[in-house]
Amino acid sequence: MDKIRVGIYGYGNIAKGVEKAIARNRDFSLEAVFTRRDPSKVRTASGVKVIPADKVLDYTDKIDVMLLCGGSATDLPIQGPELAGHFNTVDTFDTHAKIPEYLDAVNKQAELNKKVAVISVGWDPGLFSMMKALFASLLPDGTSQPFWGPGVSQGHSDALRHVKGVKGAIQYTVPIEKVMNEVRNGSTKEYTARQKHKRVCYVVAEEGADKNRIEKEIKEMPYYFSDYDVEVHFISSAELEKEHSGMAHEGHVFRNGETGDAENYSMEFSMRFDSNPAFTASIMMAFARAAFRLYKENSFGAKTVLDIPLSYLSGKGRKELIKEML
Amino acid sequence: MDKIRVGIYGYGNIAKGVEKAIARNRDFSLEAVFTRRDPSKVRTASGVKVIPADKVLDYTDKIDVMLLCGGSATDLPIQGPELAGHFNTVDTFDTHAKIPEYLDAVNKQAELNKKVAVISVGWDPGLFSMMKALFASLLPDGTSQPFWGPGVSQGHSDALRHVKGVKGAIQYTVPIEKVMNEVRNGSTKEYTARQKHKRVCYVVAEEGADKNRIEKEIKEMPYYFSDYDVEVHFISSAELEKEHSGMAHEGHVFRNGETGDAENYSMEFSMRFDSNPAFTASIMMAFARAAFRLYKENSFGAKTVLDIPLSYLSGKGRKELIKEML
Repeated sequence: MDKIRVGIYGYGNIAKGVEKAIARNRDFSLEAVFTRRDPSKVRTASGVKVIPADKVLDYTDKIDVMLLCGGSATDLPIQGPELAGHFNTVDTFDTHAKIPEYLDAVNKQAELNKKVAVISVGWDPGLFSMMKALFASLLPDGTSQPFWGPGVSQGHSDALRHVKGVKGAIQYTVPIEKVMNEVRNGSTKEYTARQKHKRVCYVVAEEGADKNRIEKEIKEMPYYFSDYDVEVHFISSAELEKEHSGMAHEGHVFRNGETGDAENYSMEFSMRFDSNPAFTASIMMAFARAAFRLYKENSFGAKTVLDIPLSYLSGKGRKELIKEML
Repeated sequence: MDKIRVGIYGYGNIAKGVEKAIARNRDFSLEAVFTRRDPSKVRTASGVKVIPADKVLDYTDKIDVMLLCGGSATDLPIQGPELAGHFNTVDTFDTHAKIPEYLDAVNKQAELNKKVAVISVGWDPGLFSMMKALFASLLPDGTSQPFWGPGVSQGHSDALRHVKGVKGAIQYTVPIEKVMNEVRNGSTKEYTARQKHKRVCYVVAEEGADKNRIEKEIKEMPYYFSDYDVEVHFISSAELEKEHSGMAHEGHVFRNGETGDAENYSMEFSMRFDSNPAFTASIMMAFARAAFRLYKENSFGAKTVLDIPLSYLSGKGRKELIKEML
């Protein structure tokens, strides 16, 4: 069988995860990494060739699916629609509130140019979205409760770094065990953000900075922190680097409710992983497979994880899959 | 919006669950129950009309999706292909080893007559199949371990009732907690059937029957019991009826393995419900929705739970779903 030829666009943490995920998904071959940096200064782990981003259009016939590994804040809003006009793509756009708008922009280019773009792939949005949608569709009378962590939130860590006097910082989202266990045991109560998670911050202050002021600013920051119980721990740069560079994470989606004559049901999806980028990259590979298959079926346009049959994610044929899984 | 008009074919436990599930899925209307029994002797919980099975073809224009509620042993192998020639259908065919053959038979009729048939819907096969396929596709290097119960296995209870001298019986499949917790904590070991589950039997013996012989026959029964540690408890008919008519069940799908540079991951899907028929029926409704949508899109033939995008299961429109779930 011909391998699916993929390219990586943007070489950061997720891209490095993709490089390794390809070794575990043997129906793919990695053709090239594309970067806006000076290619001579980018050293890939796999030794695959590095091409300047502005030469990407020379590769339209050599790449079956382009994996977009840029960030959601500034890279993907531009790169997503642009590259979907020339390649089948998979990306991890994760600014939840802007997904509908991003979907439209990417879809326009993908449809016009007969390409397939799978957007917002990863674990949240992505795997979590699939579980939430599936659970709510199968069992409509109930409440869904996601819990994130313990694990680093990149967005909240960035927010900390924007506080004046902060030199470095990391933020862990931590579920409140007591409440999570109530939900695991079937509770359908509504909980506030504060009841479900706490936010634990490790902050390196600049020399001479007013730590009381920093702590107050963090705790009062709207949206990110003001609705939560927040712990702020001041640490040294050395400690930040040594103790807080792990990328392990956990996450849970619960749904509890009723069927029939008020009989109870509970469902739980839980995951735990050592490496956030590796886990995300692994999920991207499955959707890259689906993207190429949809392309071969002329089912063009932008797709989400909810638009694709599960069998399309597998490297196995439908018959084999049905025999093994059903 | 027009409601999806459904019929129920065969009026047993699952059918009664479907009747109640419709009350919780407000985009459906129940048109009729079809039975091979004397309709005057079938009293439906909802009061919906009861039609003799041999008049079912008078209803081809009045039913959008027929929910087949017969058993897998003798009913569905005949009814599934036959009715898929006249109606869109959803069924719960659960003889795992025979699914490929059943799929072919149903598909032939559904394709020929431009209908959609979703087969083998429920929790296993069904929801478990979806989780196993999804987990293995997203994270190919790993091992999947399902655990069933505590809960009644209908097939094993039937097997007990076929032992000479047994008047009544029920069998609970019970996971071995210690092993399940090892798997929950990330073990990728291979376990034997005996290590993962035990089988607990409550048996009512006929008067004068040799209980030692019954117990021995049960424990030595190949496939069903001989590979497991089996407890046999002899009880009275009254006790069987009073203590063992519940239909609660639990189930778990675990997957543990590695991503990237041998970083670990673990995923778990767990569910717990008070009523097996109500839970199964609720899942059938979601796939009935999908069946009718596929029919309107002219995507005919027999489908499994792996062939259908998750968004098709929802009563919500795609846009709303993406906004809420992603």
